[in-house]
Amino acid sequence: MNGAESLVHTLLACGIDTCFANPGTSEMHFVAALDRVPGMRCVLGLFEGVVTGAADGYARMAEKPAATLLHCGPGLANGLANLHNGRRASTMMVNCVGDQATHHRPLDAPLTADTEGWARGVSGWVRSCARAEDVGRDAAAAVQAAFIAPGGISTLILPSDTCWNPGGMPAAPLPVPARPQADPHAIAEAARLLRRGEPSMLLLTTDALRAGPLADAHRIAAATGARLYAPTSNRRIERGAGRHPIDRVPYAIDLATQALAGIRHVILVGALSPPVGFFAYPGKPGVVTPSDATVHVLARPEQDLAGALAALADALDAPAAPPAPHRAQVEPAGGPVTADALARSLTALLPEQAIIIDESVSFGRSIFGATAQAAPHDWLALAGGAIGEGIPLATGAAVASPGRRVVTLQADGSAMYTIQGLWTQARENLDVTTIILANRKYAILLGELANVGANPGRTALDMMDLSRPDLDFVKIAAGMGVAGARAETMEQFNDLFAQTLSRRGPFVIELAIP
Amino acid sequence: MNGAESLVHTLLACGIDTCFANPGTSEMHFVAALDRVPGMRCVLGLFEGVVTGAADGYARMAEKPAATLLHCGPGLANGLANLHNGRRASTMMVNCVGDQATHHRPLDAPLTADTEGWARGVSGWVRSCARAEDVGRDAAAAVQAAFIAPGGISTLILPSDTCWNPGGMPAAPLPVPARPQADPHAIAEAARLLRRGEPSMLLLTTDALRAGPLADAHRIAAATGARLYAPTSNRRIERGAGRHPIDRVPYAIDLATQALAGIRHVILVGALSPPVGFFAYPGKPGVVTPSDATVHVLARPEQDLAGALAALADALDAPAAPPAPHRAQVEPAGGPVTADALARSLTALLPEQAIIIDESVSFGRSIFGATAQAAPHDWLALAGGAIGEGIPLATGAAVASPGRRVVTLQADGSAMYTIQGLWTQARENLDVTTIILANRKYAILLGELANVGANPGRTALDMMDLSRPDLDFVKIAAGMGVAGARAETMEQFNDLFAQTLSRRGPFVIELAIP
Repeated sequence: MNGAESLVHTLLACGIDTCFANPGTSEMHFVAALDRVPGMRCVLGLFEGVVTGAADGYARMAEKPAATLLHCGPGLANGLANLHNGRRASTMMVNCVGDQATHHRPLDAPLTADTEGWARGVSGWVRSCARAEDVGRDAAAAVQAAFIAPGGISTLILPSDTCWNPGGMPAAPLPVPARPQADPHAIAEAARLLRRGEPSMLLLTTDALRAGPLADAHRIAAATGARLYAPTSNRRIERGAGRHPIDRVPYAIDLATQALAGIRHVILVGALSPPVGFFAYPGKPGVVTPSDATVHVLARPEQDLAGALAALADALDAPAAPPAPHRAQVEPAGGPVTADALARSLTALLPEQAIIIDESVSFGRSIFGATAQAAPHDWLALAGGAIGEGIPLATGAAVASPGRRVVTLQADGSAMYTIQGLWTQARENLDVTTIILANRKYAILLGELANVGANPGRTALDMMDLSRPDLDFVKIAAGMGVAGARAETMEQFNDLFAQTLSRRGPFVIELAIP
Repeated sequence: MNGAESLVHTLLACGIDTCFANPGTSEMHFVAALDRVPGMRCVLGLFEGVVTGAADGYARMAEKPAATLLHCGPGLANGLANLHNGRRASTMMVNCVGDQATHHRPLDAPLTADTEGWARGVSGWVRSCARAEDVGRDAAAAVQAAFIAPGGISTLILPSDTCWNPGGMPAAPLPVPARPQADPHAIAEAARLLRRGEPSMLLLTTDALRAGPLADAHRIAAATGARLYAPTSNRRIERGAGRHPIDRVPYAIDLATQALAGIRHVILVGALSPPVGFFAYPGKPGVVTPSDATVHVLARPEQDLAGALAALADALDAPAAPPAPHRAQVEPAGGPVTADALARSLTALLPEQAIIIDESVSFGRSIFGATAQAAPHDWLALAGGAIGEGIPLATGAAVASPGRRVVTLQADGSAMYTIQGLWTQARENLDVTTIILANRKYAILLGELANVGANPGRTALDMMDLSRPDLDFVKIAAGMGVAGARAETMEQFNDLFAQTLSRRGPFVIELAIP
């Protein structure tokens, strides 16, 4: 058995049965091993950013890691942006990255690069295999590290000779410790604090944003008046009719500071710090909660967030959660395309257990709040703020969730970063409806330019303008085997959207934003 | 004057007047400064890999650096693969990368990443600005470093407060030292060696591959019997009718070792080592020249390569160079599409002073040799072996070379990595003819899989198959505003190719490889 075969055996033994792949020459033995050792579903991406973003989406829904198969050096580099998003989402992932053979690396062949250095910034665990005999053991350690709460990215670098040499030994799964319970003193302290009734907020992250913990958070809120917030962008929020809603900290710095004005206590539930602005602005604060607010830790990221919330609710003798919102009975919106209209149509038409992928950037900011009474669904966003994850994230979520419709709210500028992901959606016949929000500009940057006080001239406007020529996403999608159509009115959108729900496979709706 | 304005003033003063850009929020002050300080041509890319690949192509033709404008962290990461190619080509480039404000970075906002760490692997010079007052001085140092022979990549990281704060001071250009002359002893030693008449080769790189030095190399070859080689992939080779040809070290490891068998002396002209295989293979050598060959340095990368070759030719009392090949008088090929047929049609139809961009990967390997008697042209390849540079490289070369036709030999799988570059070609109305070599598979990997002795099964074949669904590059190009058509025969190709030469702007020919 060679090292590559021991790798596949070990991954399968550890429960990893899906591999998003964009292989290169240095990974051929791994590819050959995937042939010889059955059981791994391999999903090809035409660019590494598709691969890593899809693995992120897969893990968020499957609640276990996918493997990725990436080419050495620049191949990994192409996947870094979405690995960054995955890191910020505490996503579980096991990257298998090829590299030059151990004896070839000193020769500095053209593709030789700092694979390990590039991996470090996005990986909680990095190791370069030294020998074929170690591959199985290293792979088991990589999987273990990925599983340890709150989830992490492991990158296993495999010089090609460690894959082709004999001596491979499959390894058994390593134990994954359960999430530790939150400190009872922290729970008691939070309860004491909340009973004082001063303006307080809970900042909920990762697993605290699932339906059960959110219900407990609402018990706490109802009993104490505490406000509940999620960060601006999150791994996965369970929401919709029958579930308890949660606000997100607004992206815009002024809206965020206004929303959180007067808060005296910030209680962290899986967060490491109070909310901060995505960016700094001259003369504006970095932390968006008031500077005199005190910060308390209910539970650290790796602790049992759901248990901590339940324990806190119980410590407060909080009654059962108030009723969750029922499903809104609304008709789809007609007339011109606006964010409110899109939110209303989604509320009316979204099927049960849909998965919404939010890369709507500027246009879609109000859609989250306005869809709280749609059918129950999951909401996934790019947690690290690196655009170009919407289409890949949708791809991976769909692979993990057969039978559920994935709906991608996709800004047009961002769509172009990883547009190649549409091809994978076609090849795998994934049930993804991609709504391209086509305003034909980098609208967020126009807003930011105004924020910096600039009166944009021709040069600046040119750099934020996606027209000249217009992007035609229907043609681009067709070129990758995905059917699509353009909607100029809400009526057209409603018809197209309903059609996508009645058929299998991917579809692109280019929604013209006036 | 703020820091950003001092940056633009300094770049312009240093002769940098072209900026390939994909800005984000943290770069808005730079964008605003580009408005206020006239003189910089800004070219928008819809993905950072397009930006960095275009800057690489620009510098190879313009013989001076372009600036790039990249977003912090993941934005830079998206550009790394083509920066890797640029580094391997010793390309001059000045990256201006935004970053979190100095006071915001400790807050670890979602987009915060190891910008500097990621930059190091591809940059000969990296600096993070500390204060607005330093931006001008740092920018001048970045440009100086980029210009120093043989050319390098500088990355200047600009925390947003260093851009928006007042106190910016434009800096004057710093002196760029001339290339040092090669050591006269090295020239005398090489002459002594070559006079012995043992089988020898000169390995020529970067500036040694221009027409003048190649003529001197041919003087040496004619006088001594030495063989002349370039590495497999190169920054820029001046070639075609009236110029002296040069072979490249073959990509395939067996072909390379066969070609170089018997060589006793390897004389390096700008290379740091004898030629090595792109990858290692079990039981095959890493260095492709014979293990008992001795290695000699005629000139180091930073030295005057052209001067060294001329001096060596003179030291050998070599007569004038033999005549260079005349232009072949051939008709375009008819019938089925093959690499030989494509080479023949290019030889017949290529206009004077065309620029060929070679990302032909497996299909096109024979085209280089078979086009030596086409009209004089430049040949640019991805020097670092990271696929996904063809379309960007063509874009930048065309920006640098108005009036010259750029012809991209573009493998289909590789095209999908940075397909967004077509949009920039449309926006700038660049004279680029992109020939998509559509074999609908990762053909190189099928060859590599055979090399590792594997008999591919369904899983492996699926990962190398680009059909299901077929990619339609004519539709994809149309979606980005680029006209195109598909050719199934050489007659169709010839007609389309000739048409592209008679009109301005970009065109895509999807050439069906049977």
